[in-house]
Amino acid sequence: MFQKLLVLLAVILIYCSKQNSAVIAAIGFSILGYFVTNWLIPRVGPSFIKIGLFGKDLSKPGKPVLPETIGAVSATVYLFVMLSYIPFIFYKYMIVSTTGGGQRGPSVEDSSMSASIFPHNRLSEYLSSILCLESTILIGIADDLFDLRWRHKFFLPVIGSLPLLLIYYVDFGVTYVLIPGFIKKYFNLTATIVDLGGLYYVYMAAMGIFCPNSINILAGVNGLEVGQSIVISILELLNDILYLTWGSPDGIAAHRFSAVLIIPFLGVSLALWKWNRWPAKVFVGDTYCYFAGMVFAVVGILGHFSKTMLMLFIPQILNFIYSCPQLFNIVPCPRHRLPRFEAKDGLMYPSRANLVDNPPKLWFITILKALAFFHLIELEYDPKDKSKVISCSNMTLINLTLVWFGPMREDALCNRILQLQFMVGLAALFGRHAIGALLFDHDNLWT
Amino acid sequence: MFQKLLVLLAVILIYCSKQNSAVIAAIGFSILGYFVTNWLIPRVGPSFIKIGLFGKDLSKPGKPVLPETIGAVSATVYLFVMLSYIPFIFYKYMIVSTTGGGQRGPSVEDSSMSASIFPHNRLSEYLSSILCLESTILIGIADDLFDLRWRHKFFLPVIGSLPLLLIYYVDFGVTYVLIPGFIKKYFNLTATIVDLGGLYYVYMAAMGIFCPNSINILAGVNGLEVGQSIVISILELLNDILYLTWGSPDGIAAHRFSAVLIIPFLGVSLALWKWNRWPAKVFVGDTYCYFAGMVFAVVGILGHFSKTMLMLFIPQILNFIYSCPQLFNIVPCPRHRLPRFEAKDGLMYPSRANLVDNPPKLWFITILKALAFFHLIELEYDPKDKSKVISCSNMTLINLTLVWFGPMREDALCNRILQLQFMVGLAALFGRHAIGALLFDHDNLWT
Repeated sequence: MFQKLLVLLAVILIYCSKQNSAVIAAIGFSILGYFVTNWLIPRVGPSFIKIGLFGKDLSKPGKPVLPETIGAVSATVYLFVMLSYIPFIFYKYMIVSTTGGGQRGPSVEDSSMSASIFPHNRLSEYLSSILCLESTILIGIADDLFDLRWRHKFFLPVIGSLPLLLIYYVDFGVTYVLIPGFIKKYFNLTATIVDLGGLYYVYMAAMGIFCPNSINILAGVNGLEVGQSIVISILELLNDILYLTWGSPDGIAAHRFSAVLIIPFLGVSLALWKWNRWPAKVFVGDTYCYFAGMVFAVVGILGHFSKTMLMLFIPQILNFIYSCPQLFNIVPCPRHRLPRFEAKDGLMYPSRANLVDNPPKLWFITILKALAFFHLIELEYDPKDKSKVISCSNMTLINLTLVWFGPMREDALCNRILQLQFMVGLAALFGRHAIGALLFDHDNLWT
Repeated sequence: MFQKLLVLLAVILIYCSKQNSAVIAAIGFSILGYFVTNWLIPRVGPSFIKIGLFGKDLSKPGKPVLPETIGAVSATVYLFVMLSYIPFIFYKYMIVSTTGGGQRGPSVEDSSMSASIFPHNRLSEYLSSILCLESTILIGIADDLFDLRWRHKFFLPVIGSLPLLLIYYVDFGVTYVLIPGFIKKYFNLTATIVDLGGLYYVYMAAMGIFCPNSINILAGVNGLEVGQSIVISILELLNDILYLTWGSPDGIAAHRFSAVLIIPFLGVSLALWKWNRWPAKVFVGDTYCYFAGMVFAVVGILGHFSKTMLMLFIPQILNFIYSCPQLFNIVPCPRHRLPRFEAKDGLMYPSRANLVDNPPKLWFITILKALAFFHLIELEYDPKDKSKVISCSNMTLINLTLVWFGPMREDALCNRILQLQFMVGLAALFGRHAIGALLFDHDNLWT
């Protein structure tokens, strides 16, 4: 499904980045990451099962046992790829700071001289990203091993994003954001930026909570966690290509950084996708969801385009909002909200929440009926009393897709959701560059 | 045992570091790390047992089951302490680069200006250390979970030290070492330094293999892994105090870095010691051994005093050399070489290798007899044929201590080994500063 698109992407990226060896090296390391991950996954699977990291695939006949937490393999390979990559992106700058003739200059003794040439601030930016991802992986593994409680899980990624926030604090400290033009006019402001101060760190921490968890919540169908991460990666790379081609120097730097982090992520994710897609041979585990979400959070935060990044999460945001009535127990929430697998025809059907044993408040029944009118939920009425609702489809994007398009096989369901996500993301990117120019007086792409 | 010494150490450190807020903050964070670790360990123990991370204490009556890999708790707390610590050591420099009046200056826009003031090279040094330790912990956890094979385990720490080597490469690239004066005279050299080039990286990787594994090998008695790490930490801090008091500016910078890394390590290790000392309530696992060893390797490498650091590992080096005949199967090596616990009197006795079923070569019997003559091994002779050796004590420092001082209780054994280590380390430090001056024409402490 992704193959041709990826080759095309690689070619465009290489073309757009021109003499940019960092992007070309990233593509090389991405391919390396793909093969290493692909080689490792079938070999480590049995060991994962042996130590109790396994789960049952409930949507298959016979409910086979599959190794769980295999996303940790992708994540670890990614880390070591990113580490091996350091000399390739920072070596260029070292050459600059030589005394000529290929000899390395006095870059240590004369620190004031070299510090002004060697981009240490870029290195610490890069290192803090890896550190943040590594902490996130460590936390993800702890979660997968110890099966933490939901309310702990939700906030754990903040600890993982701690390195990023701290290094952002000592290293950049930029806490202002642009004010949209219409707000400026409305409030008659003269400033074009507003300094959020400490709130900016709250905002970044919120990104660190939101991205990992939103990927973790939109899950339950073979390949969906990895698939959505791949779709977001591709969309983000498309956005990077725009900036690398037409952007200002600042934009190019930020989006080169983004491409450098996301291209290898795409490599290890595609290898995982190969094993996790329908019919899944492995499960990815929370580790991967946290890790993938944090890659996007890091890229968005350090690239200073977190709002654009959030636009690529629109399906996840909608899924979260749609889930709220069940998450906050306004509508009863069963233990699992996965779609129901029917062994007879091998298709997936929307799973349902029982509204009889534990009925929602009356005013919410009205809302449910309104949602049903707009085809945003499926209600089941009591055959004897046609006005009494006895169950509704569970409020997840997955079930909603089944409500819209009817029962389908698990792989078709996953692909349909990914297609929807890709379309929404493309529209968001288009909107961002078309409408962004109106909101902020100019689009930063064209300046 | 350690309490008074530690309070004394802290007072001396604070006194010697004078206005050095970094060291004082490290002591604060060390105390924090102690209490967090101490609070966490009893709370997470049962979860570790539940997921299969447990082991039997063979040297206790009834062989109780204890949680294993608890060192991962210390290690994780250490990481987050070190991360939280970043603003405290780097904030000072940020104040410098302001425009005055407490307002943060244009430290991002004008990167060339700020780069020359803000010590980014120090930050990336610090980050790479944390990154290296975090990778080591990740590998240690993989080892503890999957029980890797010995030949894989041995080289795994190299992967953990990869971040350090790579950042050393792009960031410092100093690969020369001092030539001792007597070699200079002997070979009639004019240069005082020799550039090892790529070999220096091999040397650093070797440190990364040696330190973690040597701590892992000198193990098997309650508290010994942690105890030896604490002893090395204290010795290293004594050495740091020497430099902080009388050292050159370069020496002060290197040893302040060392103190800043080791003081919080001491805190989390003391909390672990409290639970792992005899009678152990938890086991530390390979994670802790790798982590502790890597802390020392990192400090030695980045502080440019790896030779001094190796001197503090003399007991571990001797233990390794002494173990070689069994490691390389010249003498049969049983699965476990722990001292033997005698339930009758509750004492530990040297465990023995059977030399009858699988006798060593004749020339080695002669060596064994020579070792026995110098009380470096205990041999058992056939009662019928007094010239035939039927068993020898296993070749580890632990068994040798029992050979020297007779059977004793496990805690006495551990303390005895730690005392020996402390004495040897003190002598090594004394020798290093007294004899170092002769070898290198001068001691870097006094210049």
